[in-house]
Amino acid sequence: MINVIEQKRDGGELTREQIEFFINGYTAGEIPDYQAAALLMAIYINGMNRRETVDLTMAMARSGDQLQLHNMGTFVVDKHSSGGVGDKTTLVVQPLVASLGVPVGKMSGRGLGSSGGTLDKMECIDGWTYQLSLDECRNQLADIGLVLAGQSVSLAPADGLLYALRDVTATVGNKSLIAASIMSKKLAGGADGIVLDVKTGSGAFMETEEEARELAQIMVDIGEDAGREVVAVITDMNQPLGYAVGNALEVKEAIDTLRGDGPPDFRQHCLKIAGYMLLMAGKAETIAEAEQLAAAALDDGRALAKFREMVAAQGGSVEQIDNPDLLPRAKYIEDILISREGYISGMDTSELGWASVNLGGGRRVKSDKIDPAVGFLLTVKIGDHVSAGQVIGKIHADDPQKLEEARKQILDAIEVSERPVKALPHFYGFIS
Amino acid sequence: MINVIEQKRDGGELTREQIEFFINGYTAGEIPDYQAAALLMAIYINGMNRRETVDLTMAMARSGDQLQLHNMGTFVVDKHSSGGVGDKTTLVVQPLVASLGVPVGKMSGRGLGSSGGTLDKMECIDGWTYQLSLDECRNQLADIGLVLAGQSVSLAPADGLLYALRDVTATVGNKSLIAASIMSKKLAGGADGIVLDVKTGSGAFMETEEEARELAQIMVDIGEDAGREVVAVITDMNQPLGYAVGNALEVKEAIDTLRGDGPPDFRQHCLKIAGYMLLMAGKAETIAEAEQLAAAALDDGRALAKFREMVAAQGGSVEQIDNPDLLPRAKYIEDILISREGYISGMDTSELGWASVNLGGGRRVKSDKIDPAVGFLLTVKIGDHVSAGQVIGKIHADDPQKLEEARKQILDAIEVSERPVKALPHFYGFIS
Repeated sequence: MINVIEQKRDGGELTREQIEFFINGYTAGEIPDYQAAALLMAIYINGMNRRETVDLTMAMARSGDQLQLHNMGTFVVDKHSSGGVGDKTTLVVQPLVASLGVPVGKMSGRGLGSSGGTLDKMECIDGWTYQLSLDECRNQLADIGLVLAGQSVSLAPADGLLYALRDVTATVGNKSLIAASIMSKKLAGGADGIVLDVKTGSGAFMETEEEARELAQIMVDIGEDAGREVVAVITDMNQPLGYAVGNALEVKEAIDTLRGDGPPDFRQHCLKIAGYMLLMAGKAETIAEAEQLAAAALDDGRALAKFREMVAAQGGSVEQIDNPDLLPRAKYIEDILISREGYISGMDTSELGWASVNLGGGRRVKSDKIDPAVGFLLTVKIGDHVSAGQVIGKIHADDPQKLEEARKQILDAIEVSERPVKALPHFYGFIS
Repeated sequence: MINVIEQKRDGGELTREQIEFFINGYTAGEIPDYQAAALLMAIYINGMNRRETVDLTMAMARSGDQLQLHNMGTFVVDKHSSGGVGDKTTLVVQPLVASLGVPVGKMSGRGLGSSGGTLDKMECIDGWTYQLSLDECRNQLADIGLVLAGQSVSLAPADGLLYALRDVTATVGNKSLIAASIMSKKLAGGADGIVLDVKTGSGAFMETEEEARELAQIMVDIGEDAGREVVAVITDMNQPLGYAVGNALEVKEAIDTLRGDGPPDFRQHCLKIAGYMLLMAGKAETIAEAEQLAAAALDDGRALAKFREMVAAQGGSVEQIDNPDLLPRAKYIEDILISREGYISGMDTSELGWASVNLGGGRRVKSDKIDPAVGFLLTVKIGDHVSAGQVIGKIHADDPQKLEEARKQILDAIEVSERPVKALPHFYGFIS
């Protein structure tokens, strides 16, 4: 191990054998944390090339169970979002794509910090469970073409161990390590094709477009070298996606969208992501054609029907899907009024995410319990004109004091300019 | 701690407060090894400037007890060698300087690897002990002006802890960390003036002269900023110092030198180091004058008398000093013959050190027991002409098989050239 550390410390390249020795030894508890920490810091500072990053990802993917989905006989697709505020895309895109005959098996995670997690949102639905065995996942995928499971600890366990160490040794922010962490789980998850939604902006981990492109390129490269089809879409996270932030509120917005309604930016986002998944699975010749297919499945109810089918298969209440007013509801619901006339010129999206966490809708630490009902709707977008006293959204809270704190935090996070401001593009690029 | 790691990871400068937070927290066991390892790797790769290195050294020096020698009313000097093969300088220089009225209080260490340790050499003398309390050290220093104690664990304990971690995380070889390690112990040792003997060559940790100069400059800078007088001499370690390698053999050679005899290179080395110590203590105006004073003290027996006094004060047998043949003696003593005619053109000095370790005269790991009698004398120097079959030294062994192995190892480590070779300089430079 000391030779491995020395190699990277001096700016050298690690061989595949050295990388496998490290990952296997660390996962087995044979390499101590202090040696792993020294190596991670050397990797952080001196970087890894494409071959090393791929080898690291593959070693991590092989560190536990690996789902074998391609023996299903069809092309299985998955998507991954790099995380953002109001990102309920999975809830819409997965049933949408599955409703068009493309099997979708997805392992989702919980939320931590200002980004919410798909499992936390789905758990607003009474009785719904994500705890499925690998066999149950495979069976449900064969039966209805859609499964939304919790990420099993036995998928890429090396990633969980390394992430915990990176978190306390200031070695999280290296793009090769981030890419290996994300892609190891995706590869172990077994999909043939993966669409990556890499977000950039004030609510994203990658604040600049350049950083997001760099991370996306590394992940696409890993996918290519691992023999999977991977494309990445760079999307905007300078404001929340859609209007709703908070678990039950986001589920309602997802159901609205699955009905053919929903916020225009969110619908467009879902059509784009679903479009690339359909294109990848050979269901269309062009992205425009794929988006049209997807739009039709939203508008004619097929996507919603598939979502309902998945909820039922995983033990959830379909009554709440049919009547979203039965979803958890907060005690206090109040308007958010803006005080000044002008144009919305910027949002501190990460702060908006924290406002939802502070209301009780997210976690600061893993052990925090979530209040599914709370959150807010923010119905303005950057570039919109607002008048003094205009209602720009609603706060849903279970505590009057937290409501007032959230109101202040939300208003503080929104910039208003006297001069007109251009709306932001939603898509910045596409990498394949 | 994560902020501290991030700062150095990104190439920033650590504040004094951050460095003290790290050293105090790590010494107290509050900062885990993995965080310390990540920081050490960031320091290794991104370096530390002079101010940071000084702050680190001072924080380490303050991590335990600090000897207060300057309240003795006189200027106390110390020396430090960066370690080499056949380096018995301390045994000669300390009594030599003390015999000229300059108090010398020295904390010495044990040997590990190819370099021998002063304490291991002194323990060849029956009854001699290095285990003195801080009070006993101060009293003996006041009484006879000379004390040679073992390095107490309570002096700079942070250094011992950090060294153990650096050893297993590939972070030993950074010059700021090496300098801080050496100087923290010297500063805690309390001397007003310190002469550093920084060795360069095939038997030294710093193989090139440039590396040795760089390390020496950092240590001199630390001394200056810590308010101590520090000078460094860069000396040759491309061949053993003197002829003797091995504990009792080196003690005999030191006694010979204290009597005014001994190998010319070793005598010259001792006069130079002692000369700078005397100059620093104001006993001479020039280094030439200081060396003359020292030579006189060797030649007229004052230095030997002071050594004898120290041995007696620390419980050792003065009979063995008066008659070095009473020191431990090996069972087998055999000549080393060289097979080819030519000129000694090079030595792998580190290998020569290992030959002595293999005979039983040193340690591979800390727990190894030392055989005081074994070792060898090598009476040729680089540049010397040798004839085929000439005796170039003697091996002292307690085991016939080890003797033959050592003979092969020693002869393999010596290069002979057909063409004449220049003798090496012994001093490369001086930094103050």
